[in-house]
Amino acid sequence: MEFSSKLLENAVYEMSQLPGIGKRTALRLVLHLLKQPESQTAQLSTALTALREDIRFCTNCHNISDKELCEICSNPKRDRTMVCVVEDIRDVMAIENTGQFTGHYHVLGGKISPIEGIGPQDLSIAPLVSKVMSGEISELIFALSSTMEGDTTNFYIYKQLQGTPVKTSTIARGIPVGDELEYADEVTLGRSIINRIPFEGSFKMS
Amino acid sequence: MEFSSKLLENAVYEMSQLPGIGKRTALRLVLHLLKQPESQTAQLSTALTALREDIRFCTNCHNISDKELCEICSNPKRDRTMVCVVEDIRDVMAIENTGQFTGHYHVLGGKISPIEGIGPQDLSIAPLVSKVMSGEISELIFALSSTMEGDTTNFYIYKQLQGTPVKTSTIARGIPVGDELEYADEVTLGRSIINRIPFEGSFKMS
Repeated sequence: MEFSSKLLENAVYEMSQLPGIGKRTALRLVLHLLKQPESQTAQLSTALTALREDIRFCTNCHNISDKELCEICSNPKRDRTMVCVVEDIRDVMAIENTGQFTGHYHVLGGKISPIEGIGPQDLSIAPLVSKVMSGEISELIFALSSTMEGDTTNFYIYKQLQGTPVKTSTIARGIPVGDELEYADEVTLGRSIINRIPFEGSFKMS
Repeated sequence: MEFSSKLLENAVYEMSQLPGIGKRTALRLVLHLLKQPESQTAQLSTALTALREDIRFCTNCHNISDKELCEICSNPKRDRTMVCVVEDIRDVMAIENTGQFTGHYHVLGGKISPIEGIGPQDLSIAPLVSKVMSGEISELIFALSSTMEGDTTNFYIYKQLQGTPVKTSTIARGIPVGDELEYADEVTLGRSIINRIPFEGSFKMS
């Protein structure tokens, strides 16, 4: 792509560094900003810079937060003995939307992935282990995505906790509610049969 | 979407103001920036702000440019009597990539669109008309997209130029090179028959 302006080229280059945004999309976005009032670009720049510079993480659960303790961790009504281990803030938001979980979270900040060069020391695993060691947690629910990396991370943490009395569980894998059996993949369908649940328990919510 | 941080919410909101970027994508992009070094966010913000504040438009063709005259307009080898009328800089880049055009451009900055509230006075039509009136242009090539808005804009400019000796043409519409006839839409195929060209001219490039 040949640009007639260095400023434009720079802006498009920086925009195209974002994941899933190629040069063409970046150019479209940048040209859109040029057509909008200058204030919109200023607000976008300010918001991004402010976030990146002033962002804090909850000292308890490592979730993104503006305060030292996030709203979930500082809510006395939530059960601090039950902790759900998730990858990032999007998973917290997804689970919160269900309204089915009243415990605390622990945000790892990623999954162990040798290919991407992410090891256990890059994630907030050590604080989780010491929280469990201190005896304040009775149940740990693993809610990482069921990929190779997710399973590795689950297993790594599980190994670290051997010998502690903490109960560990993982969220149920199975056929999504409303889905047709015939279109389900074999692994999921197979797991859903192995991990079948008593019929009386199947219509109980929360 | 419930956010645990006002800073995060702000950044996601501003990002989702860009066209084609919803709240979920915006969150994904913003979280990506949080995982990258602070310098990446700083560079993105600076590039966008610099572009928006310091951007200039070529005084001749209204294309985005860092100088008073863009590189095309200041190139003495280009034919200034032949002007291609386009919507925005992306069209200039697309035509330049073909290597088939050696004239100048005139960037309108959009198309007449009553629905979006864009009238002739919002586009750089008046400078084009006065350039033609001054007699320095011998041929005007309309290269707007063939939509209702594009056709309206072409026709509006054409009407303004009635009485001047300028030659006007429009880029050929027809079956794309390499396409199968059976899959072509009727309007395009119909036009390609009406506007058929002499066979001897059909394999001449530039």
